[in-house]
Amino acid sequence: MTGTIQRTATADKLARLEQILERRDLDCAVVCSYQNVSYFGGTYLMTQQSLPDRLAFLILPRGKTPTLLVCAIETSMVRAQTDIGDVRDYVEFVDNPTEVLARVLRDRGVAGSIGIDARRLPLASGDLLRDTLSGAELVPIDDDIELAQAVKSRSEIDTLEAGARATLAAAEETAAELRAGATEREFSTMVFLKLMERGGAPLFLVFASGEKTMHAHPESTDARLEPGKLWRIDFGARFNQVINSDLARTGVIGNPSQEQRDTLKALRATQDAGFNAIEPGRPAKDIFNAVSNEFKRQGLPFGMPHVGHGMGIGLHEFPMLEPGNDIRLQAGMVLNVEPMVVLQNRKEAYHTEDLAEVTASGPRLLTPPQHELLQVRA
Amino acid sequence: MTGTIQRTATADKLARLEQILERRDLDCAVVCSYQNVSYFGGTYLMTQQSLPDRLAFLILPRGKTPTLLVCAIETSMVRAQTDIGDVRDYVEFVDNPTEVLARVLRDRGVAGSIGIDARRLPLASGDLLRDTLSGAELVPIDDDIELAQAVKSRSEIDTLEAGARATLAAAEETAAELRAGATEREFSTMVFLKLMERGGAPLFLVFASGEKTMHAHPESTDARLEPGKLWRIDFGARFNQVINSDLARTGVIGNPSQEQRDTLKALRATQDAGFNAIEPGRPAKDIFNAVSNEFKRQGLPFGMPHVGHGMGIGLHEFPMLEPGNDIRLQAGMVLNVEPMVVLQNRKEAYHTEDLAEVTASGPRLLTPPQHELLQVRA
Repeated sequence: MTGTIQRTATADKLARLEQILERRDLDCAVVCSYQNVSYFGGTYLMTQQSLPDRLAFLILPRGKTPTLLVCAIETSMVRAQTDIGDVRDYVEFVDNPTEVLARVLRDRGVAGSIGIDARRLPLASGDLLRDTLSGAELVPIDDDIELAQAVKSRSEIDTLEAGARATLAAAEETAAELRAGATEREFSTMVFLKLMERGGAPLFLVFASGEKTMHAHPESTDARLEPGKLWRIDFGARFNQVINSDLARTGVIGNPSQEQRDTLKALRATQDAGFNAIEPGRPAKDIFNAVSNEFKRQGLPFGMPHVGHGMGIGLHEFPMLEPGNDIRLQAGMVLNVEPMVVLQNRKEAYHTEDLAEVTASGPRLLTPPQHELLQVRA
Repeated sequence: MTGTIQRTATADKLARLEQILERRDLDCAVVCSYQNVSYFGGTYLMTQQSLPDRLAFLILPRGKTPTLLVCAIETSMVRAQTDIGDVRDYVEFVDNPTEVLARVLRDRGVAGSIGIDARRLPLASGDLLRDTLSGAELVPIDDDIELAQAVKSRSEIDTLEAGARATLAAAEETAAELRAGATEREFSTMVFLKLMERGGAPLFLVFASGEKTMHAHPESTDARLEPGKLWRIDFGARFNQVINSDLARTGVIGNPSQEQRDTLKALRATQDAGFNAIEPGRPAKDIFNAVSNEFKRQGLPFGMPHVGHGMGIGLHEFPMLEPGNDIRLQAGMVLNVEPMVVLQNRKEAYHTEDLAEVTASGPRLLTPPQHELLQVRA
């Protein structure tokens, strides 16, 4: 990050969107989500995440140049960020953004079939678009768009790696610096501080100790870190404006028991099994199956709907490492593998998550997996 | 916040939803947004914000008890948070959440008209619901739902006030502690740290100095704070899991010029004009008009689509203080008034934002507005 606003080159990414239009034989693409507008439009508008009514659209008529349609409040920012020349805007509360979108589409000569991110476009907008553009057909292209974003550029991989390493360092340093008796909140505050000092913008943070580790996404409380208890963290930040990190670690307060050590070791074996299944050409579900099979071999109860996911502007990008996913791995994909085990009898849960790049010769780990439980000393 | 997970009482809020069903003569309500599921369902699921495909629904058949439908990953957390007894779940990647929703609706005997948050429900879900539930009509009730949330309880107002004051303290302390030569990022890092130390979970942060202040939502860079330049901050956090803060301040590095002092004073006059228009029974647009008229009187260029908004779980809740809004103010509403002026000739922008409760006798300010530019000393 520098002292000025970075301008993003969009040509390569828009070419991927153009290919979808050709392959699906569509007249135009209109995408609206934060992930999709950021990726194809070269923007990073925080209000797309915090203000869901402030819609933004990237429009690409087939074989033509793109248009960005944003709230007028954001126009100067967008013009500073993107290399797309045609930035149009609407006035909030005066214009209905979707009606303006329909006008832009008519103006750009779009009629017929429009590919949209139907899992993101609000129903109210979709219905209004259908009413306004008679004869237009809205065609979901969510999966195509996700797949187009799955293979990262070298600079994206570099940012993902730097972000993941900064995230790991924040967790490890915090565990080393705090002592038993500190509160959960003190842990999460210190972790976020260390992330921000490394250029990350806080995104989410799961932290819990003791029984609360069994929930998927608990937040830190004023509970104190008590010797003998387990803790776990799962957190991330944005780096270089739009690239996320997402990392999980499990630790103890004081010395771990042999049972706790053994469980972490068994969990790590399941993660290794997942990484070892990474190879270009294999379907994403192979990683899921490798992890779930290793859970059985290790005698750990398995209850995960997925064991990891692609990383980028989105937190769970394609390919999802889930049992029905036939998408083939390709070099340049970047995946988190994150086994988690919930032990009902011991009332604790273990979770570990690391990032790997898919290369021609297999996985390249971007963070070193944990060899032992992180320790907050007593 | 305590060391355990708080359980939320939902009866009062669900009664408001029931009233909407009666008034609109609908058979059922189904809401899906983070704001709406949190408010009516008594949950706070961070993945509703970070993972848009992990849908969650609060279902209220008219005259009956509610059902929560969530991803199975979240079930244990939801059961610990809500007092709603009927929590059902779907298995991610195995089930389609919307198909499960349709089954739950059939199981609960729902047919006919279903009120939905159509500005939040994804088009893909809405279309699937229509296909699956033949004969069901999806009726947008977004505005009704927003309005039902606009009047806060005493404890919600207390949290809003505590959060707003913590947010203000973080900005004021950081400005007082840093010196010229620090970077924008150092400012935003320190602000977030001070927020977290006060129990806030970072939500968003706009920070810029110099010309970049003119954009609506710039993020901090490595630029250094240079004497003579203006800076501005607009940021917020979540407190007690679900209540947001949102506050803006403008400052200088070194001593302000007389021109800068005068501009802040003029801007403050527009904010005062807005607060002075707060009175139960008056339409929300009166505040907009009071502020925009004062801009003219002060000779400031006015370009705002709104001058403030309600605050709660959402960042821009009802009532929006915009020119077409006839919603009548009621005691218990909590509003931010946030005039911003962009001075193209001087290449700087000023922004200030404070929170007020609407009471029978007028506004009660929850944060003291700024009397002068905050100063980062040279």
